[in-house]
Amino acid sequence: MEYQDNPTLYKIRHSLAHVLAQAVQKIHPDVKLGFGPPTSTGFYYDFDFGDHQFSDKEFKAVTKEMMKIINQKQEFVKTEYTNETVVAALEDIMPTETFKKENIKNLVDRGVTDFSFYQNGPFIDLCKGPHVAHTGELPIKGFKLDKVAGAYWLGSEKNPQLTRIYAVAFESNEELRAFMDRRRIAEKFDHKKLGKDLGIFHFDSEMVGAGLTLWLPNGTVIRDEIENYAREIEFRYGYKRVVTPHITKDKLYHTSQHLPAYEDSMYPPMLLKDGEGEEQTKYYLKPMNCPHHHLIYGSDQRSYRDLPLRLAEYGTCYRFEKTGELSGLIRVRAMTMNDAHIYLTEEQFEEEFKSTIKMYQELYDTFKLTEYSFRLSIRGEENKHKFKGDEAMWTKAEKLLAKVMDELELNYFVGEGEAAFYGPKIDIQFKNLMGREETVSTIQVDFLSGQNFDLKYTNEAGESVTPIIIHRAPLSTHERFISFIMEYYGGAFPTWCAPTQVSIIPVADDCMEYAQALAEELKANYMRAIIDDSNNSFNKKIRNNTVQKIPNMLIIGAKEVEENSVTLRRYGIEEQAYMSRADFIQTMKDEVVNRTMLREPMGSII
Amino acid sequence: MEYQDNPTLYKIRHSLAHVLAQAVQKIHPDVKLGFGPPTSTGFYYDFDFGDHQFSDKEFKAVTKEMMKIINQKQEFVKTEYTNETVVAALEDIMPTETFKKENIKNLVDRGVTDFSFYQNGPFIDLCKGPHVAHTGELPIKGFKLDKVAGAYWLGSEKNPQLTRIYAVAFESNEELRAFMDRRRIAEKFDHKKLGKDLGIFHFDSEMVGAGLTLWLPNGTVIRDEIENYAREIEFRYGYKRVVTPHITKDKLYHTSQHLPAYEDSMYPPMLLKDGEGEEQTKYYLKPMNCPHHHLIYGSDQRSYRDLPLRLAEYGTCYRFEKTGELSGLIRVRAMTMNDAHIYLTEEQFEEEFKSTIKMYQELYDTFKLTEYSFRLSIRGEENKHKFKGDEAMWTKAEKLLAKVMDELELNYFVGEGEAAFYGPKIDIQFKNLMGREETVSTIQVDFLSGQNFDLKYTNEAGESVTPIIIHRAPLSTHERFISFIMEYYGGAFPTWCAPTQVSIIPVADDCMEYAQALAEELKANYMRAIIDDSNNSFNKKIRNNTVQKIPNMLIIGAKEVEENSVTLRRYGIEEQAYMSRADFIQTMKDEVVNRTMLREPMGSII
Repeated sequence: MEYQDNPTLYKIRHSLAHVLAQAVQKIHPDVKLGFGPPTSTGFYYDFDFGDHQFSDKEFKAVTKEMMKIINQKQEFVKTEYTNETVVAALEDIMPTETFKKENIKNLVDRGVTDFSFYQNGPFIDLCKGPHVAHTGELPIKGFKLDKVAGAYWLGSEKNPQLTRIYAVAFESNEELRAFMDRRRIAEKFDHKKLGKDLGIFHFDSEMVGAGLTLWLPNGTVIRDEIENYAREIEFRYGYKRVVTPHITKDKLYHTSQHLPAYEDSMYPPMLLKDGEGEEQTKYYLKPMNCPHHHLIYGSDQRSYRDLPLRLAEYGTCYRFEKTGELSGLIRVRAMTMNDAHIYLTEEQFEEEFKSTIKMYQELYDTFKLTEYSFRLSIRGEENKHKFKGDEAMWTKAEKLLAKVMDELELNYFVGEGEAAFYGPKIDIQFKNLMGREETVSTIQVDFLSGQNFDLKYTNEAGESVTPIIIHRAPLSTHERFISFIMEYYGGAFPTWCAPTQVSIIPVADDCMEYAQALAEELKANYMRAIIDDSNNSFNKKIRNNTVQKIPNMLIIGAKEVEENSVTLRRYGIEEQAYMSRADFIQTMKDEVVNRTMLREPMGSII
Repeated sequence: MEYQDNPTLYKIRHSLAHVLAQAVQKIHPDVKLGFGPPTSTGFYYDFDFGDHQFSDKEFKAVTKEMMKIINQKQEFVKTEYTNETVVAALEDIMPTETFKKENIKNLVDRGVTDFSFYQNGPFIDLCKGPHVAHTGELPIKGFKLDKVAGAYWLGSEKNPQLTRIYAVAFESNEELRAFMDRRRIAEKFDHKKLGKDLGIFHFDSEMVGAGLTLWLPNGTVIRDEIENYAREIEFRYGYKRVVTPHITKDKLYHTSQHLPAYEDSMYPPMLLKDGEGEEQTKYYLKPMNCPHHHLIYGSDQRSYRDLPLRLAEYGTCYRFEKTGELSGLIRVRAMTMNDAHIYLTEEQFEEEFKSTIKMYQELYDTFKLTEYSFRLSIRGEENKHKFKGDEAMWTKAEKLLAKVMDELELNYFVGEGEAAFYGPKIDIQFKNLMGREETVSTIQVDFLSGQNFDLKYTNEAGESVTPIIIHRAPLSTHERFISFIMEYYGGAFPTWCAPTQVSIIPVADDCMEYAQALAEELKANYMRAIIDDSNNSFNKKIRNNTVQKIPNMLIIGAKEVEENSVTLRRYGIEEQAYMSRADFIQTMKDEVVNRTMLREPMGSII
């Protein structure tokens, strides 16, 4: 964290780091110190314990020492040195702290001139401060040692490995406990954990490669249902679907100007000769669908009567994200995007933009995603020169976007300098499970690609004109969107897109025949139903199906068989319902067709 | 063509080639001769006309000369030489035929010892024969000069370009005319022509690359509808869908044993380092889906209770077909396959295989594909050693396949030595538009992959056992299947998968409101409807919509508006029908849901 984010908390965390180091030194006098900064949730300190293996079993003892230091109300005292005096002073102040001394010498070499030290009690540390006045100001129950990890000195594998002790710290015990609760929930509903527990996805970085998702059957159901829904809504909004290859010759990306600029984010090319005697050609995996779509636009004569032409594709793109940045489904190397490009005339722009926003809202309503806001990303006064394209067009488009958002009474704010280089855009910011804002989706206006690809249409006057292009992807990529809703729903999907929609639990063997007929009837209606015919006890079955977050469980006993009925238990809903078999089937059908979501999503938990 | 295919026709075509050369020499005495063989539909001859530009305008004059030669009943006389006498003789026989002489010298150098020449009238040619006795035996109206093309001497770009005159030739005028009729139809319904006329697909070999299809909106509708249908039927047969990446590290293909054996058919690898300090890794585009699916099987513990596990994916694969072999959608470099792999126990094999065959039949029935037969491809006695895997298993599987096909009373024949190296298979042979047999689809039994990937399940006795795998792809690839049915249907798709399902033609302006309401109602039912509001005349509109092969045209006049009705014209059906609007909507809905195909497909035309 930075000081300005929250000065009070910064001082507390920073001071607690010193207290931790002092406490560890008390118990292990030979320990050598590394760095000890505040973090966004607390602080850490790096230690060289020599041959000693420090573990979390010592947390209690260290915490006890820390308490003592806090109770001693040790004053923080600052001393200052210059680059000329500091090195000599060091041999006095901390003769055995080899890491600290190396660091200070590096800083002097790099031209740093002013150095300050803070001392509290017997402990002294190189430190810019600021700190609390004395340790008595520290919240004695507001911190908690958290975990131990290895960390290389200065972050390089070539240097010695130190032991890093992490702690969480807040201004009060209440805040600490609230944070720990949220974190526990976040871990429980982390999409990587859910993805494994619920059979959603799998990675095999050794055989296939890091960041390349193998979608398991349950995950594929979710993808398919989302895609079906996107197709339906896109059909209603007049989109036409296309399919384009995952690779292309480099020429396409020189035309689109993605090469050489974007090359670092792409997989390296395949080099091949198309035919005997031909030059070697570079083929690339596509990192985006746009250039392929522009070729489809350009493959035929277009008239103003054909516009807006809306080309949609759930297209799989490949981007070479750095290995260290890969994280579950959130950051991957293969992503399937809810992509579309709208080619239109200037006159059509306002209406089409409005209808696009409405489509976004309709989609998010279905998913009960309510915690989002729009950011209107424009050039801003300062950076106008950085953006390409016609001045008048930019001004007009920026005004139009604002006008439409005002008319639609949208919750939005303006991001100056945040536009794409080829046009203004709308970013849709969602709050995730932990309350953090993420850009899930954008709508971009593009004045450049039409020119790069020499795209044209014939206007009413018979003239050849370049269309404006809107890029839009309301449901982002499957990878990002599904990881997002998986957490946001706590893994419990509504009936329409749940991998298993109905689990039938017969309470005795003589209910099996009825259960099977019921399952067949559901399947004949293309519903995903299973019978839990395991040898588990009834209660265990209920528990297992709940753990799997199956939205509908049917309890089938003698009464249900006799009365041709079911007892329905909904996931996360206390009361169970008794109804006729026909009513139940109809309920399911309705919920699937209407994409009903009975429960509120768990949503952001702060 | 080969002599043994049809000796009579071979002699006719071969002799006609000599007659053509003689006729051309008569008109152009300085012409030099290349080769002149029979072909599968006639014959050709290559000529060097020097500076003269020969064109099809001379066909009439050449044909007239040919007729004369035929009427002269010139006898074909054979003379023989050895490699020792032929070169000297040549300077006598054909002193100016530089190409012929070069060819004969090459043959001598390559060790050919016997040479024969055939003379008829003043014309003599190096030739193995046989020929008809005299030119009077040739069908004077059974041949037709067809086209002129360029062809390099000996097929190499480094050699001079000759002029090739093609001709078609049959035993009688009736056969010739029948062939020309068929060919005209085949050209009219060639999927490359239809693909362009109907907006199905597009290639851009300069920007994207040869063999990489850009599916246009109309083609994507067909793909989507076929895919929806495959999903539906696969759901009913208990399949689970998965999605896997289009690329993989090479390790996967070393495990599957596709590398190095299969490398020539693959795109070259992308070479990259996954992280700092790591070795360079090879990533390949997948040429098939199987190895990825095997990893999904292997990603979890499996019990006999989980089997058969049927993993399905409409997966896009990339194969590097040679540029010269690419042909429309039939041979491409990117193909999306109706793929699935079934993992099962030996005990389940018979029942599952039977049910797989039934699924194939159900699919083909829907598409009204009736002209197909099954080939049971086994090892055969001679080549047993070439095939891998357990002897007893092979014997058992081959017997079982035959047994099931017998029980199902299938039309099948046995292909000895045609099995895959890893197991026996069933090939499904379709007759295409021109009556030629094509292998459209296969079902393969695989004893090897389970071992290569160390796949296991726990059997009832608690032992760890390797499953048998069935590979199946009834609908082949989208590319192959759609090009096939496009030709087979003559481009006219049934309502359920037609790109535009209904075209509404209002006969006057005051019918427009009703037409629009009708279009909206169809769209609200997710049907693809357009209104033809062009300025064309009524007849032109009918013609245009017929050319586009739209299955349903609605004529909307004053009567229809008043009576809330429609007049329906079906593509390819003479009679039009008058019905209420509600009846029409219901008819459409039923046809879509039931995937009705009203008309018989054009089918094979011989």
